[in-house]
Amino acid sequence: MTVETTIAGTTDTESPEMLVARIARDGRAAQRVLARLSDARKAEALRAAAAALREAEGPILEANALDIAAGEAKGLTGALLDRLRLDPARLEGIAHGLEQVAALPDPVGQVIERTERPNGLQLSRVRIPIGLIGIIYESRPNVTADAAALCLRSGNAVLLRGGSEALHSNRAIQAAMAKGLESVGIPAAAIQLVPTQDRAVVGAMLTAAGLIDMIVPRGGKSLVARVQADARVPVLAHLDGICHTYVHAAADPEMARSVALNAKMRRTGICGAMETLLLDTQFPGSRDVVTSLLDAGCELRGDARARALDPRILPATEEDWDTEYLDAVLSVAVVDGLDAALDHIAAHSSHHTDAIITADEDVAERFLAEADSAIVMVNASSQFADGGEFGLGAEIGIATGRLHARGPVALEGLTTYKWQVRGNGQARP
Amino acid sequence: MTVETTIAGTTDTESPEMLVARIARDGRAAQRVLARLSDARKAEALRAAAAALREAEGPILEANALDIAAGEAKGLTGALLDRLRLDPARLEGIAHGLEQVAALPDPVGQVIERTERPNGLQLSRVRIPIGLIGIIYESRPNVTADAAALCLRSGNAVLLRGGSEALHSNRAIQAAMAKGLESVGIPAAAIQLVPTQDRAVVGAMLTAAGLIDMIVPRGGKSLVARVQADARVPVLAHLDGICHTYVHAAADPEMARSVALNAKMRRTGICGAMETLLLDTQFPGSRDVVTSLLDAGCELRGDARARALDPRILPATEEDWDTEYLDAVLSVAVVDGLDAALDHIAAHSSHHTDAIITADEDVAERFLAEADSAIVMVNASSQFADGGEFGLGAEIGIATGRLHARGPVALEGLTTYKWQVRGNGQARP
Repeated sequence: MTVETTIAGTTDTESPEMLVARIARDGRAAQRVLARLSDARKAEALRAAAAALREAEGPILEANALDIAAGEAKGLTGALLDRLRLDPARLEGIAHGLEQVAALPDPVGQVIERTERPNGLQLSRVRIPIGLIGIIYESRPNVTADAAALCLRSGNAVLLRGGSEALHSNRAIQAAMAKGLESVGIPAAAIQLVPTQDRAVVGAMLTAAGLIDMIVPRGGKSLVARVQADARVPVLAHLDGICHTYVHAAADPEMARSVALNAKMRRTGICGAMETLLLDTQFPGSRDVVTSLLDAGCELRGDARARALDPRILPATEEDWDTEYLDAVLSVAVVDGLDAALDHIAAHSSHHTDAIITADEDVAERFLAEADSAIVMVNASSQFADGGEFGLGAEIGIATGRLHARGPVALEGLTTYKWQVRGNGQARP
Repeated sequence: MTVETTIAGTTDTESPEMLVARIARDGRAAQRVLARLSDARKAEALRAAAAALREAEGPILEANALDIAAGEAKGLTGALLDRLRLDPARLEGIAHGLEQVAALPDPVGQVIERTERPNGLQLSRVRIPIGLIGIIYESRPNVTADAAALCLRSGNAVLLRGGSEALHSNRAIQAAMAKGLESVGIPAAAIQLVPTQDRAVVGAMLTAAGLIDMIVPRGGKSLVARVQADARVPVLAHLDGICHTYVHAAADPEMARSVALNAKMRRTGICGAMETLLLDTQFPGSRDVVTSLLDAGCELRGDARARALDPRILPATEEDWDTEYLDAVLSVAVVDGLDAALDHIAAHSSHHTDAIITADEDVAERFLAEADSAIVMVNASSQFADGGEFGLGAEIGIATGRLHARGPVALEGLTTYKWQVRGNGQARP
């Protein structure tokens, strides 16, 4: 018997589809309660969940120790073990995060537009929760609490399916939060964790149209790609962040240097990190920009004209232009003007975040209009591509698709709307 | 050789996937031009397309005559032939429709929100076109022009795949519109028609992720269900309109009678038509409501308590509560109060449009909040569920899903947004 199957909640005779249907029905019933809660009640629920997390510090850290021990036995890398590990400070951070989400404005009930028709019908478009949201994620146990909090704040129930490495931790966090909800009279089923690591359950979640309203995958490329390929339920996903920074001829050289350095090297492992630098052939400061990056320890892979700037630049292959390194590696090309830069971006961008550095406002506005990415920037580091930096308070992910929500997705992206029509007996002629 | 394969545009060696990739690439190239057009230029393009349709009246009506002759030979019903048939008045209606869409406000470029962050970054969320939209539809040739016009107005290119019955008509309409676009310098590939009726091409469209940005199916249940089941591209679909009207105890009896009659009988074949009437056991005017419907020629199928109201009411089966009749047939149930009505609606509604008739404002507000449909109404006929009636100018469909757009979808539903960030050299700390 593996670690996974010791978790209660499944029976031998229940298929993955039956399991998902059962817990989804519980989640949907809980969501109908959430949908009617006031702003204050939802905030109270999150504060109660935070308090319950603090109270359960002992059991949560014990559960986490089991995961860490299992991870060490499995030979997980130090980096993975670090992402998995909880300690009192990290747990306090998670609990405090719930309180911060509690303090965010409630999007539910917001009137998006209101009109009155000539026949006297009054129309309002009003924000409502989406319903039951499935989150499929990998090893970090804080996602359990963060994602559940954003769903709850926006009136959605959540079905969490975390990675097997963090199962005990996730289970302990979910149990504490559910207990917190119950302490203020809110159904525990608002926050559920899939009780088995059977991979077939992921398949059952992805095809549970009508039971699960939206799936958010959070994790690596292969997880997201599998979810996108197999899902029958709408998916809010971000794939790669192949982010470009184009340094225009009219860029301020010092700004170009400092912004490019920050966009690449501040944190290389985040999806908003620059992966390709496009240097305009007319920009006089290119050598300083690449020197600064090389001196900071970044590996550069360039086309022929870029390599002429510094002998330390390695040759780039075609594959480099389509690679998200998430590391101190950068591809560099020299381009002939704005149109060539836009063409390169159109061919290779993952439509996450692309930026231009320029002092020419007309060029900046053309770039903002024509670069077709979820986030387009002028004279700023692409590392600002983040819900917190955008003032959204938190984010459940950065969506690179085109429908529903794009870019950093926070509470509003977890809502939909309904049309309310108020009449006084109107019949349609 | 069938009629279908006489249409030019495919070659023997091109697979359906290759065909879709080729025309999608042409469409995407045209869309990049559309995305940059001003409001005035897009309006000009639509007026030019309208003029070209009028000019091509001869060829279009000749093409339509071929479709009608083929339909008669195939034994199509009179109703289907009528939907297929064009005449000078109908064609003028189509051309005038394009001019009306030209007069609608352009959603592209609209700033949804604008904020400035403490670090000086200026953020705007700006509406942009979705990209290349695939429309898969059935026999009515007017959809060719209507759908293309809405896509063009919102800066999207369109790939049309109509029904085989209307192929010659669709081809003539698309050719005229494309000619109109070209006459004002806009690429004809902005409006393309799939050049073959090979059903495998529909499959290739549905899986063309990255080439087609959104699919809108317009047609019967089986078409929409197939699209939803097979699509890898996001779908904006409406399935059934199983619309309820609940007559509450405190409803004005005459209002209840007239609104219910209109909701069912004004036009029985539209998706906003009432399909189930819920009569509160405490409502005193139930007999008048059912008498009025029966006298107007509607067949009523009721539960035991409803049948006690009039001997002409037939017994309803379980299936009736889940049936969209689109005909002069109505299921009728007597319910015990608001909660029972909401439970019935939660169990059987298709989340299109549900209405309540009541003079009690608290009850009305509870219904508006708790009935979970795209459109919820108080004291109005569900037949108002229509983009035109909502003041949206036109609609591409009524979406019953939960993400992106809900209810009547018009120009705004054919757009997405990007985040524009304007800085002055900010690096993220």
